[in-house]
Amino acid sequence: MENFVFHSPTKIIFGKDTEYQVGSETRNYSKKILFHYGGGSIKRIGLYDKVVRSLNEAGVEFIELPGAQPNPRLSLVKEGIDICRKNNIDFILAVGGGSAIDSAKAIAVGVPYEGDVWDFYSGKVIPEKALPVGVVLTIPAAGSEASKSSVITNEDGWYKRGLNVDIIRPRFAIMNPEITYTLPPYQTACGAADIMAHVMERYFTHQKDVDFTDRLCEATLRTIIKNVPIALKEPENYEARAEIMWASTIAHNDLLSTGRIGDWASHAIEHELSGIYDVAHGAGLAVVFPAWMKYVYKHNIDRFVQFAARVWDVEIDFACPERTALEGINRLSQFFVSIGLPVTLEGLEIPEDRLEEMADKCTNYGSKQIGSFVKLGREDVLNILKLAAK
Amino acid sequence: MENFVFHSPTKIIFGKDTEYQVGSETRNYSKKILFHYGGGSIKRIGLYDKVVRSLNEAGVEFIELPGAQPNPRLSLVKEGIDICRKNNIDFILAVGGGSAIDSAKAIAVGVPYEGDVWDFYSGKVIPEKALPVGVVLTIPAAGSEASKSSVITNEDGWYKRGLNVDIIRPRFAIMNPEITYTLPPYQTACGAADIMAHVMERYFTHQKDVDFTDRLCEATLRTIIKNVPIALKEPENYEARAEIMWASTIAHNDLLSTGRIGDWASHAIEHELSGIYDVAHGAGLAVVFPAWMKYVYKHNIDRFVQFAARVWDVEIDFACPERTALEGINRLSQFFVSIGLPVTLEGLEIPEDRLEEMADKCTNYGSKQIGSFVKLGREDVLNILKLAAK
Repeated sequence: MENFVFHSPTKIIFGKDTEYQVGSETRNYSKKILFHYGGGSIKRIGLYDKVVRSLNEAGVEFIELPGAQPNPRLSLVKEGIDICRKNNIDFILAVGGGSAIDSAKAIAVGVPYEGDVWDFYSGKVIPEKALPVGVVLTIPAAGSEASKSSVITNEDGWYKRGLNVDIIRPRFAIMNPEITYTLPPYQTACGAADIMAHVMERYFTHQKDVDFTDRLCEATLRTIIKNVPIALKEPENYEARAEIMWASTIAHNDLLSTGRIGDWASHAIEHELSGIYDVAHGAGLAVVFPAWMKYVYKHNIDRFVQFAARVWDVEIDFACPERTALEGINRLSQFFVSIGLPVTLEGLEIPEDRLEEMADKCTNYGSKQIGSFVKLGREDVLNILKLAAK
Repeated sequence: MENFVFHSPTKIIFGKDTEYQVGSETRNYSKKILFHYGGGSIKRIGLYDKVVRSLNEAGVEFIELPGAQPNPRLSLVKEGIDICRKNNIDFILAVGGGSAIDSAKAIAVGVPYEGDVWDFYSGKVIPEKALPVGVVLTIPAAGSEASKSSVITNEDGWYKRGLNVDIIRPRFAIMNPEITYTLPPYQTACGAADIMAHVMERYFTHQKDVDFTDRLCEATLRTIIKNVPIALKEPENYEARAEIMWASTIAHNDLLSTGRIGDWASHAIEHELSGIYDVAHGAGLAVVFPAWMKYVYKHNIDRFVQFAARVWDVEIDFACPERTALEGINRLSQFFVSIGLPVTLEGLEIPEDRLEEMADKCTNYGSKQIGSFVKLGREDVLNILKLAAK
């Protein structure tokens, strides 16, 4: 087991009607905030009005910044930084999914920094200060509500890059599963793929004797596998929505990273897909992950057998463990298909003419490797993209 | 699923050589502290010297208070409170297991309170303030290093009572599994029973559709079941010691409580055993828990079948699920026996002449019920103690 530091101080406020607590929770930090959200969905479902009422009742003044979109944009982040500076705002409230939260985190590190906030995402500078961020979550997927991650897309070159630092973990996350009743099936399914990918990025490691986190990972995966089909059939099934929502947080608050080194190659490859083609991140992961698995499984067949047996209940073929390993990968693909996700680039409507460009960008034009389970160079990434094609 | 708030902000610093970080972590909070520990064991294993050196190097002044013992005493807590007040101390460092940490937490709430600190444990007053506490853990068992619990024994009447409030969660917990190499087998086994009991108190609920936390509970139990026999055979097996140590924290930081209501009757009954007879808490739990299970399982056979199947790999007897349920309880007892624990009061050398007194005290002389899975009155507690006798 690797040495680790685990510090996940986000206060989780979970359950029915919890959105009414947003004003009082926010008031613990600030009287004047940026209220950041996406498009009209929070207005359609009545959440916007509830948040506004709760902030008003708590005496919290706010300036609104709507417009956070999937694969959130650097330009909006810069707009948010300007608003905060001009208005002496010292707290960001994000109401939405991973996009609004990631965007809020970027604003939070950008405000106290004199340089270009992209410096943090390009890896040039590590941020030392951040405004506090609070969250009302609407989509279980990115896990950003308790994570140290933020992913932003720079429109200048369509680079999608992540920042991972503890100072951007939200102070509180309000999570009412009822808010997710109106999520369209495709978005529910994309969320499932994102959650599963967060677990699988951590699960595939060569670290031995990390059975505890292995089992916590398996518990999280099985929860998604059981409950997403229920939520798709019965969108207002509270219990299924609640299980998915809570699992999404645990999948990415780093509990499942403890004592081990994650892989994260599939995320890096997917960022090129959604960076260029603006596809849903979860859908991109449903395409990339099985292809990555097929490309790397021979490096540790035992681990893929464990995945097949413990996550998918595949009976182990002791005469040929490789068959079991491949069946596990197959079950993952079948699951994605069963919940309505594409598992090929073709299914995502991504043509094959820019695979080389994506492999280039993903590996900094061949100068660096990605992944940890297996170190991948430019040619490896290209091969995985080709495996994912059809 | 029940609504919940989950907030476990303790910074976990886990792994080899981490004890050298105690000075710098403490320095973030204070320059003058109470250094609280138990007997001579931390000196024998060299930990005392390492802590002193690290505190000195960080420029942290300290006053020592040794003497925390199993079932930590109120009188020592009061001594600690006096020392802190007289010396303007504003931080408590506990180096030890649950006893030193629980005692430190009691001192931490006692210092800023004008009344008798026992008020908090008798349930008369809820504490509002506490000094910050830091921990270097030596025994994986109580889970106190990240929990909101503290259990203290009042020598005046030998009452053993618990306090549960978020303000006493330690700020940091330093956990080096190597420190546990020298734990005697009996103490290792008692720790295992305590950890398993923390999980089982949460596992046995009538709450439906809490499969995620069920599976997290099962993951934790299986980790203990797998690794404790390894640690008993190979006391210096780092991986086994590490798995046990990390599981002990997760068993009791309330992650496994999320969305459900725990039972806690077995803990209440055990507190009477160790309160009067000063037996090891874990050993008391190994006696009480199987007896409690035999007494209550008919109230929810399905849940006990799940316990048998998922935790102990018992093949389900579909013709007679009750047989499966009973086999799960039997496996638990067998496991305790296999790691050297008593499973009867006789094995604990507790005579049967004060069972009525314990049932009285446990239920406030019959005026209150304990437990949640099944509400238990005085007669029920007496019946469970009788079931546990031989």
